[in-house]
Amino acid sequence: MNLILLEPAEIDDAGGATLEGVRARHVAEVLRAGPGDRIRIGQLNGPLGQGEVLEVAGGRVTLRCAFDPAPPSRPAIDLLLAVPRPKVLKRLWAQLAALGVGRIALVNAARVERCYFDTHVLDPAFFRPLLVEGLQQARDTWLPEVTVHRQFRPFVEDELETYFGPGRRLLAHPGAAGTVASALAGGESARVLLAIGPEGGWVPFEIEQLQTRGFLPVGLGARPLRTDTACVALLALVQAARA
Amino acid sequence: MNLILLEPAEIDDAGGATLEGVRARHVAEVLRAGPGDRIRIGQLNGPLGQGEVLEVAGGRVTLRCAFDPAPPSRPAIDLLLAVPRPKVLKRLWAQLAALGVGRIALVNAARVERCYFDTHVLDPAFFRPLLVEGLQQARDTWLPEVTVHRQFRPFVEDELETYFGPGRRLLAHPGAAGTVASALAGGESARVLLAIGPEGGWVPFEIEQLQTRGFLPVGLGARPLRTDTACVALLALVQAARA
Repeated sequence: MNLILLEPAEIDDAGGATLEGVRARHVAEVLRAGPGDRIRIGQLNGPLGQGEVLEVAGGRVTLRCAFDPAPPSRPAIDLLLAVPRPKVLKRLWAQLAALGVGRIALVNAARVERCYFDTHVLDPAFFRPLLVEGLQQARDTWLPEVTVHRQFRPFVEDELETYFGPGRRLLAHPGAAGTVASALAGGESARVLLAIGPEGGWVPFEIEQLQTRGFLPVGLGARPLRTDTACVALLALVQAARA
Repeated sequence: MNLILLEPAEIDDAGGATLEGVRARHVAEVLRAGPGDRIRIGQLNGPLGQGEVLEVAGGRVTLRCAFDPAPPSRPAIDLLLAVPRPKVLKRLWAQLAALGVGRIALVNAARVERCYFDTHVLDPAFFRPLLVEGLQQARDTWLPEVTVHRQFRPFVEDELETYFGPGRRLLAHPGAAGTVASALAGGESARVLLAIGPEGGWVPFEIEQLQTRGFLPVGLGARPLRTDTACVALLALVQAARA
């Protein structure tokens, strides 16, 4: 935890806040902060700041919060992700938030198993704490916006344009010859929408639908990777190409 | 499983092999292969090849193996990794093998907890199957060579040079201004040794020791990442810069 994140509702009008549970234990036992110490804090979807510890007692930590005038900039990469196996998606949530993703649209695809949709791993009550954990690791406050789309075609045909807006579009596909760097050349400041398919890859119809909408195919070399590994690798490559 | 890996001892002189357990179930239930079908196989630390299914019966699959004349090339990236938290290392094994790493030297560092060394996660009986899983995912046969070094200084001073040999050397450090691409510029065909520190980073003495031995500091931007996320991200960047 490199940052303690607070929900806006947890902060009173005078900037006071009380932590309990995991966050309070982290302040007391890992940071070993006491009255007068300052710790890094952030307001979810808002600014970063500092919290002055007022009191540590009875499993609670009381803070006086002071926030920066402006929030950090919103991550400039969005993700269109074919729903991965629950076990893989579970491992991915915190890492996606840590790497920095603006929006995550989880979509169906021909090679996605139907049962992947009926799992607690897609329930906000399950994944939101993992996203917050990733933000606290990476010192960010922007919670990725997550949506789930049970049908690929209507989403891509009717919603994609308004949902993601302008920017560069990449389509990860095993074996594609293009690289992330070449696909982003000349557009280093644009937002990037990265589409990552199921472990078996997108089927030709899906590739055609995405290419029609401006997605450029990019590969990751000859080694087929698990979706979580591929997501982290591709997000790192996109960030490096944009830097 | 994009490849069925066999230990050399599992293959008889006539190229026959019998699978049981997970691999046999994968052939029968996922690949749904029957007599006459050919499946991708590989010999651990040896060549790739094809296995002709001879029989599927009683939870066993009998194969006739034919291997390529030469093994795939050995991964050109080695890793010097400060021992991560057991939970993180557990998640990392298969991903390291999948991404392709030649050698992994797990070393102590000032910010590594002593207890990280006394865990089953560092036991070959635990991690070897995970490495094999990663190779089967990525269709490779080269098992990373793993060594554990309980003392940073003697390892770096006395063993590093003979252990890793020539090549480019990178030192990942939070906040370093250098990028992987700039550090590797002009040496795209050299082997790369990548040093990744503990989550709190290397301490100044360790950085100095590594820099003296030719390691160039590289960063991953402003977001502190968990070791597993950072490893995957850095390996992807090194591979892209070498490609």
